[in-house]
Amino acid sequence: MTPSAPDALREAAARDLSALRATHPCINHITNFVVMNDTANITIMTGARPVMGHALEEAGLFATDALVINAGNATFTDWNEAMIRCSLESHGRGRPVVLDPVGIGANEVRTRMIRRILAEGHVDIIRGNQGEIGVLSGLGGRVRGVDAIVGLDDPAAAVRALSLSTGTVSAVGGERDVVSDGRRTARVASGHRYLTMLTGTGCMATSVIAAFAAVDDDHFAAACAGLGMYRLAAERAGRFAGGPGTFRALLLDEMANMTPEDLGANLPVEAIA
Amino acid sequence: MTPSAPDALREAAARDLSALRATHPCINHITNFVVMNDTANITIMTGARPVMGHALEEAGLFATDALVINAGNATFTDWNEAMIRCSLESHGRGRPVVLDPVGIGANEVRTRMIRRILAEGHVDIIRGNQGEIGVLSGLGGRVRGVDAIVGLDDPAAAVRALSLSTGTVSAVGGERDVVSDGRRTARVASGHRYLTMLTGTGCMATSVIAAFAAVDDDHFAAACAGLGMYRLAAERAGRFAGGPGTFRALLLDEMANMTPEDLGANLPVEAIA
Amino acid sequence: MTPSAPDALREAAARDLSALRATHPCINHITNFVVMNDTANITIMTGARPVMGHALEEAGLFATDALVINAGNATFTDWNEAMIRCSLESHGRGRPVVLDPVGIGANEVRTRMIRRILAEGHVDIIRGNQGEIGVLSGLGGRVRGVDAIVGLDDPAAAVRALSLSTGTVSAVGGERDVVSDGRRTARVASGHRYLTMLTGTGCMATSVIAAFAAVDDDHFAAACAGLGMYRLAAERAGRFAGGPGTFRALLLDEMANMTPEDLGANLPVEAIA
Repeated sequence: MTPSAPDALREAAARDLSALRATHPCINHITNFVVMNDTANITIMTGARPVMGHALEEAGLFATDALVINAGNATFTDWNEAMIRCSLESHGRGRPVVLDPVGIGANEVRTRMIRRILAEGHVDIIRGNQGEIGVLSGLGGRVRGVDAIVGLDDPAAAVRALSLSTGTVSAVGGERDVVSDGRRTARVASGHRYLTMLTGTGCMATSVIAAFAAVDDDHFAAACAGLGMYRLAAERAGRFAGGPGTFRALLLDEMANMTPEDLGANLPVEAIA
Repeated sequence: MTPSAPDALREAAARDLSALRATHPCINHITNFVVMNDTANITIMTGARPVMGHALEEAGLFATDALVINAGNATFTDWNEAMIRCSLESHGRGRPVVLDPVGIGANEVRTRMIRRILAEGHVDIIRGNQGEIGVLSGLGGRVRGVDAIVGLDDPAAAVRALSLSTGTVSAVGGERDVVSDGRRTARVASGHRYLTMLTGTGCMATSVIAAFAAVDDDHFAAACAGLGMYRLAAERAGRFAGGPGTFRALLLDEMANMTPEDLGANLPVEAIA
Repeated sequence: MTPSAPDALREAAARDLSALRATHPCINHITNFVVMNDTANITIMTGARPVMGHALEEAGLFATDALVINAGNATFTDWNEAMIRCSLESHGRGRPVVLDPVGIGANEVRTRMIRRILAEGHVDIIRGNQGEIGVLSGLGGRVRGVDAIVGLDDPAAAVRALSLSTGTVSAVGGERDVVSDGRRTARVASGHRYLTMLTGTGCMATSVIAAFAAVDDDHFAAACAGLGMYRLAAERAGRFAGGPGTFRALLLDEMANMTPEDLGANLPVEAIA
């Protein structure tokens, strides 16, 4: 049984969530203003603790267990430098770095900036929407504003190619998420359509992945576990929500109330290859 | 029947909301930190898509369908420049610009800044509270902090005067909203007192107007439609809310669940002149 | 009966909340991006009105009734200067200044900055978690990220010592809050564990204290009243919440719905000394 087999991923997810709830790793975020509150809260629901330390003067001074780089404010010069510097510092301590390439492809300034983070900084995991992953992989997709307006014909091929070319684990959103490390590829199902009707739901998925990566050196398994927990919680929240507003509150509840046993038994993954 | 007749406004509102749900126009926001998340989400509820692109380096690079300028952070030098530059760029492409003059009159620095936006940038629609519209129209009202502390004796006269002097459509909040393009004037009723017990509810109204203006070149009709949808959703949310916290979640639900037919049948407008 | 006797504190709390609901004092905040929306909303629930005026150009130009300095963005140079300048200006007008030393002890840059605010600005009330108050009082506690990871052996001794050395009223969070002015010390009970599962709940407590201090020159009584109202509302919200997400909405509801009589009858304080 290879590690991409669903059973192994489910076991890892249960183990990871137990570790998160027991050890409360610290996840630093350099992220955009719009989603700071939401991403901090979703991080807490996993058991981890958020730090939102974007100041260049503090770059590398918080000894955190994982780092999220979210490019939503990509053109704030100081923050870009902090992203690069923090990513190298985290990597130097063997801690994972997760990039959310928000809006890459929407305009040249932003595209150039995000490519610079990848070239000069260090990134272990990339998660984006179909437009963003399409731009990064060169396999299609289109972005307008910060949304994918043209999706990918073959999301699995795109994440596989991106992982191979960058040496990362990569994940792409959509009706289902697809995750790859270049060798193993898995699909994560479940979720709810209200996820597409709130700002920051992709950014929150990225934070959840970072929390799991803080306790699991197999970043492919961590990404599957984090996305699986998030989508499972969303599916359940959607059952009782009257719309996106109540869904948002219930999503936090479902995340907080999920146990490792529950996650292990119900992780909505299936192997593709 | 003139276009300010309630029946014509109701027809326009239904048509606009259909267009929003079908075409998902992109609404750029240069707004303040406090309300970014709330205004992004309320934008999505209309069917539009938010972009929060305030960086000066990106000014004019997002090809969006409408622009919101919210002066809550009016004294951030770079952002002010971005507001002016983006407003001219949007106007150059024939896309509407909506200004929320947050806190004008609260102090001289902010007042001067907002007047500069109006003088050097381009604005199609202005929406503010009674204190702010009083300061801009010169017809009374007073602002403390970011709240109106002295209301207007005659809101309709104030928006009419402001529209005539600036060539904009203008709208003022209060027990009811009043909208004018200088020639036509309408009152928008409905709403709920919890709207006065949450931060950002005025800013959210401005975003909804911008979404409607993105699909309706008659900005007077668009402002009536947007404010009517928002206040109708608020009235309904207030019926089931236990307080401002649950109201806030239910407001998003009611906005998301409202159909064009429903809005057309129930738009709470009445013509004044 | 000394003013620290619970009965006197309960009377003061009822009187303060009546004043807040009648006079709507204006509370300026220079605070961090993550909690701006939450702290603005909790301020409104007390009856006060929030202003989030952090711009250096506007420092001292909002004639507000109390000031919150929250060091969550402590290393933004301009904002630090605004904190110091606004605190002196508020003090010059006899208006209270409340400091939340977010993350002091997490790294040297932040620690130095917060110490500079205390040395060069003016502070009347300090509220922090056990790690932060431990660092400031020199009596233990440890901070990682922005969380206390080692608590205080004797929170009452820490706030008493900090109040005596700084001439402030100080308060420390935890299972219960402890408040001291150096002479009088009280414990505030009630609350709910979900307060530890959301970002910004400490920052919100600080805002509530500032609102009460705006209407009560006895800052010790004001801090007890504010923390008591907040924890009582949290306890009640927790009874009906399904998790931290719904709790967050219900907390605002319970704050808004609490009457002065109710608060006076149920303020969860007990005198220690």
